[in-house]
Amino acid sequence: MENLEAFFSPSRVAVIGATEKAGSVGRAVVENLRGFHGAVHLVNRKHPEVLGIKTLARVSDLPAGTDLAVIVTPAPAVPEILRECAAAGIPAAVVISAGFKEAGAAGRELEREVLEIARAASMRVIGPNCLGVMVPGTGLNATFAAAMAMPGNIAFLSQSGALCTAILDWSFSAGMGFSAFVSTGSMLDAGWADLIAHFADDPRTAVIVLYMESVDDAPAFLGSARRAALKKPLVVLKAGRTEAAARAAASHTGALTGSDSVFDAAFARAGVLRVDSIAELFQTAEVLACRRPPRGRRLAIVTNAGGPGALAVDMLARHGGAPADLGAETLARLDAFLPGPWSHSNPADILGDADAARYARALEIVAEDAGNDALLVILTPQAMTDNAAVAEAVVEVAEKSGKPLLASWMGGDGVEAGRRILARAGIPCFNYPDTAARVFARVTAHLSQPPVSGTCAVDERAPDLALRVIARAEAGGRVLLNEAESKQLLGAFGIPVVRTLSADSEDQAVDHARALGFPVVLKLCSRTLTHKTDAGGVRLALTGEDAVRDAWCEIRDAVTVRAGAEHFGGVTVQRMIADKGVELILGASRDAQFGPVALFGAGGVMVHVLQDTALDLAPLDVDQALRLIARTRVQRALLGARGSAPLDMDALARLVALFSRIPLALPQIAEMEINPLLAAQDGFTALDARIVLRRNL
Amino acid sequence: MENLEAFFSPSRVAVIGATEKAGSVGRAVVENLRGFHGAVHLVNRKHPEVLGIKTLARVSDLPAGTDLAVIVTPAPAVPEILRECAAAGIPAAVVISAGFKEAGAAGRELEREVLEIARAASMRVIGPNCLGVMVPGTGLNATFAAAMAMPGNIAFLSQSGALCTAILDWSFSAGMGFSAFVSTGSMLDAGWADLIAHFADDPRTAVIVLYMESVDDAPAFLGSARRAALKKPLVVLKAGRTEAAARAAASHTGALTGSDSVFDAAFARAGVLRVDSIAELFQTAEVLACRRPPRGRRLAIVTNAGGPGALAVDMLARHGGAPADLGAETLARLDAFLPGPWSHSNPADILGDADAARYARALEIVAEDAGNDALLVILTPQAMTDNAAVAEAVVEVAEKSGKPLLASWMGGDGVEAGRRILARAGIPCFNYPDTAARVFARVTAHLSQPPVSGTCAVDERAPDLALRVIARAEAGGRVLLNEAESKQLLGAFGIPVVRTLSADSEDQAVDHARALGFPVVLKLCSRTLTHKTDAGGVRLALTGEDAVRDAWCEIRDAVTVRAGAEHFGGVTVQRMIADKGVELILGASRDAQFGPVALFGAGGVMVHVLQDTALDLAPLDVDQALRLIARTRVQRALLGARGSAPLDMDALARLVALFSRIPLALPQIAEMEINPLLAAQDGFTALDARIVLRRNL
Repeated sequence: MENLEAFFSPSRVAVIGATEKAGSVGRAVVENLRGFHGAVHLVNRKHPEVLGIKTLARVSDLPAGTDLAVIVTPAPAVPEILRECAAAGIPAAVVISAGFKEAGAAGRELEREVLEIARAASMRVIGPNCLGVMVPGTGLNATFAAAMAMPGNIAFLSQSGALCTAILDWSFSAGMGFSAFVSTGSMLDAGWADLIAHFADDPRTAVIVLYMESVDDAPAFLGSARRAALKKPLVVLKAGRTEAAARAAASHTGALTGSDSVFDAAFARAGVLRVDSIAELFQTAEVLACRRPPRGRRLAIVTNAGGPGALAVDMLARHGGAPADLGAETLARLDAFLPGPWSHSNPADILGDADAARYARALEIVAEDAGNDALLVILTPQAMTDNAAVAEAVVEVAEKSGKPLLASWMGGDGVEAGRRILARAGIPCFNYPDTAARVFARVTAHLSQPPVSGTCAVDERAPDLALRVIARAEAGGRVLLNEAESKQLLGAFGIPVVRTLSADSEDQAVDHARALGFPVVLKLCSRTLTHKTDAGGVRLALTGEDAVRDAWCEIRDAVTVRAGAEHFGGVTVQRMIADKGVELILGASRDAQFGPVALFGAGGVMVHVLQDTALDLAPLDVDQALRLIARTRVQRALLGARGSAPLDMDALARLVALFSRIPLALPQIAEMEINPLLAAQDGFTALDARIVLRRNL
Repeated sequence: MENLEAFFSPSRVAVIGATEKAGSVGRAVVENLRGFHGAVHLVNRKHPEVLGIKTLARVSDLPAGTDLAVIVTPAPAVPEILRECAAAGIPAAVVISAGFKEAGAAGRELEREVLEIARAASMRVIGPNCLGVMVPGTGLNATFAAAMAMPGNIAFLSQSGALCTAILDWSFSAGMGFSAFVSTGSMLDAGWADLIAHFADDPRTAVIVLYMESVDDAPAFLGSARRAALKKPLVVLKAGRTEAAARAAASHTGALTGSDSVFDAAFARAGVLRVDSIAELFQTAEVLACRRPPRGRRLAIVTNAGGPGALAVDMLARHGGAPADLGAETLARLDAFLPGPWSHSNPADILGDADAARYARALEIVAEDAGNDALLVILTPQAMTDNAAVAEAVVEVAEKSGKPLLASWMGGDGVEAGRRILARAGIPCFNYPDTAARVFARVTAHLSQPPVSGTCAVDERAPDLALRVIARAEAGGRVLLNEAESKQLLGAFGIPVVRTLSADSEDQAVDHARALGFPVVLKLCSRTLTHKTDAGGVRLALTGEDAVRDAWCEIRDAVTVRAGAEHFGGVTVQRMIADKGVELILGASRDAQFGPVALFGAGGVMVHVLQDTALDLAPLDVDQALRLIARTRVQRALLGARGSAPLDMDALARLVALFSRIPLALPQIAEMEINPLLAAQDGFTALDARIVLRRNL
């Protein structure tokens, strides 16, 4: 799709619905377009002139080469106007008008109509119900905002018009400039994927910043964001962390895969840096858009006060960063000219009476040290401090050394002069040094992650046995597979499962136990209850026939008392695995937007107590599986904590990857879970499993 | 001690070292004192006049009733001057001069001298090496800062002079006022405890804000802060989170009790709100110092845009807060006048075209709802928004309703007018609504914690048996007690331990096993190795004589191979506890500043993998022990997760409390640890234990 060029470098713009009415959107748009470097035409059926500009009566009167229509009429008029625009060969329209899907059924019908017209004419539409589009570099302000953004290299895309106006207002005081400023509205046509793809290729854009309330087309967004992230940083602030609906959870996995953690996984997969607050969105954009954005993670700090330096180091450590070591040569060179009591390590506290010359010399020396990747300069306004002179010295060093540099001029109006000098030179300057350190740590941690690989291909075909298991359950009108069925299905894919036999009677249970060999485990078999432990439905380490008979009765009685006799459907019998190992959980479910997701973590009956699981989009390849495993604490146990030998992590990763492909091979599966997966020296074995089918496929 | 009145409401102030020299500290102090409402005298031996003010030649020339000396002379002159001040009956001195302990041995000697003089004369000293003291309400600016703080109700105490100057500069733009502004310097005499106690009783102070680099006298600080926190909020920013020295850890507890987590525990115990960044220090102080600080945790939000409201709710949830529910009556009253598409729930999105009247009416109604404790008003600058008029409406509602109210006027200069109106009315206004929500959540979570109880009395006397165990080890020159000794000591205090017998030979191990009854456990006994599992020194579930003999050889061989034969000192034999239960860890160690600390959490060999421990200052009473337990995830397992019956939490808390008293009863103990403590239906049993004695007591 894409082809959004006409929105962001049009040569002729037409406003349809231009009007003089005070306070109207139509008037605001006309006034804002006065600064456009290209041609502007106004279309108005009734008035021959608007704000001193001659109007055209009809869209068809527009000159050839008109490449962008800005529509500000009432919603009901929009379909007809779009038809005229299509007829006139206009390739792009920004529909600012409100009154579409947000206004109910009639509005939804209007949207449908608009989309049909646009698609038929291969016309692209931004909006409806948006603030419009700004391209400061070309003077294009096709919005009804109160001011025009400053030119710069940030493409800002926002699903909230209200946030646009606030961010615009902030950007002036922050001195932040934009390559484009887009209010996406309801994204009837041009959505996340198209817009991101456009700005990924836009040479004027260094950073793409998104404010997202929802994702329109998850796979398209993912693909586009992943491709874009290989070219330039993407930063997203996503509202709705707490939205996560209370989902009826037929398995742990269901409860552990809230929709917001799926967003986290999706953003991570696509290489998008997710921030948590508006403040962080700004700060991150500023650092990424600056002249020399930091890449490496080792930060050296030069300061005229110890406390602020220590606070910066605290924050750095807290967000996974680390202060750089100053090399021996650097220390010697600093020693040679700094007063004796300087700190002699990073942070380099060059003392309260540091003047511009001392800052400059110290910065030069530290910048030449190959042991750091970036510098943070901190200034506190002390008695002797000339903050403007120090700022000028910093700018000079930055120019000469080429090293990425952040600054924190601490204080209010008293240090404003220095801040302005730094801003003009493209050096990000923070109010607080610990904020600078946090943003640095998060940005460089993100940038230093190896580029993500694409989705792995899945050519897994479902084995016949697995299909038969599902067909049998479906024929019985069931969505819950019992333990034996679940293991059968997993086993058919090559997942090692403990041999598990179903027994409908006490005697059959005894026979199975004899066949498998003691000790055995008896577990409840039920078409309705899936949490067997909770129902009193698990008996371990049964060493003989009598123990099996007792266990049969205990399970039957426990279920009858706790839930009712109808929930007892016999038991399964399996050999007790005596070998001590680590209990893991493997899960998979489907997100409404992002599709299959896979979960790995510490398992067993205490899975909710341990709170040690990680989530990713499925399918996973082996590398991705290894990375998923590495996000859990239990990994340390697998790697051989406390004297035990490490387990075969590659084999585990292959197993996780295989498991993650099953929901793609079997679209019938809604949720599946192995818990526990026993990880031991002699391999990995699914001791229990449950699979839930989709009700209506 | 205390008696700091003379610093903060003096009537006659003398400057010793007053000078006209441009750029000097002495001149800056004299100029700053010009605004003082009381009398100011200058002492200068050489010049009869300084800056147009007649000077006195000697301290002894000062008039009676001079109650504060401000000393700005070079350090070597300070002792003599203090002697003169003492002779003149001056009760208090601020020593601004630098060149004391920070300057080496000579400086330390000067400090000793100064302290001796001050103590002898019952004179109080702030400093040396500080910026000085401001009391804006009395016009007193006894500092060399470039400006005077605005009057207000925040007492700010800072160990960093540089941070003082930065914060002072910020405070002007933030409109923040102070009851006192104190640079504490090296705290030679007046330290944290005295200063906090003073401002706890100061009626002009509503909030005490500390910037702390180190604690001078931990018990005094704790006591004073705890008493103060019962009267008014204390907020602290402590530098040095990452300082935590790499301590040689003879036990898990040693590694798990880093000095910064002890600070966390100490602050929590004292009721001090610890913040993590300079930004948060400011924001928290602003909210706590405002006219009607919030108390309750239920926040209602009124906004003219949905996205910002959603971001605020996200942040609220993330920091443990929760949005209030709007009552049915409130909803009905809002429905009656708001346009149809308003959000019909909290956050109340009253839509982009909301004017001042709509804001006012909506706020009035929401404020009257008893289901919320505070309001957050969010404004985005949209086309129709008159931000100043809305601010005035907000102020009016705040006055009338008396409900605590926060605001976020989103944007830059465009909403400055409204921000100023809110600031004048004492309503905290944030740039970002999610920041407001975070600060609200953290502040109200802190304020809603039940007041802490004091330290519990310890009259635990060490049992003779415990003393004998220690004496025996000390006689042998050992600091490590072996497992049997450790359990003996704990058992002597009444802690249930599994019976454990030492065996020096294979045969003796077999005899012990027979006496205890099979199955048994054999564990390495070593004077040097404490991590038995790591050394291959644990063999479980030995069911007969042969198994015991095999285990003896295996342990001996493993230790010999891994560490050397000299580390094998026989084994201990104990009965294998078959009952499955939850493995816990109990630990205690000594912090250099805060003394004994106790640790509780998930135990077993995987303690470092689980990362589930909590720490508090020892001793703990039973309530405090329950709260410590509640901070861990493993508590859920104890309370009966997944079908198992809950354990006796009171009994566990009594055990934890008892354990936490042992290091107070036995100052010989450096570190002690029970791991695992088996928690099962039939009680709690220490299966393994290790105790380390202090090397030099």
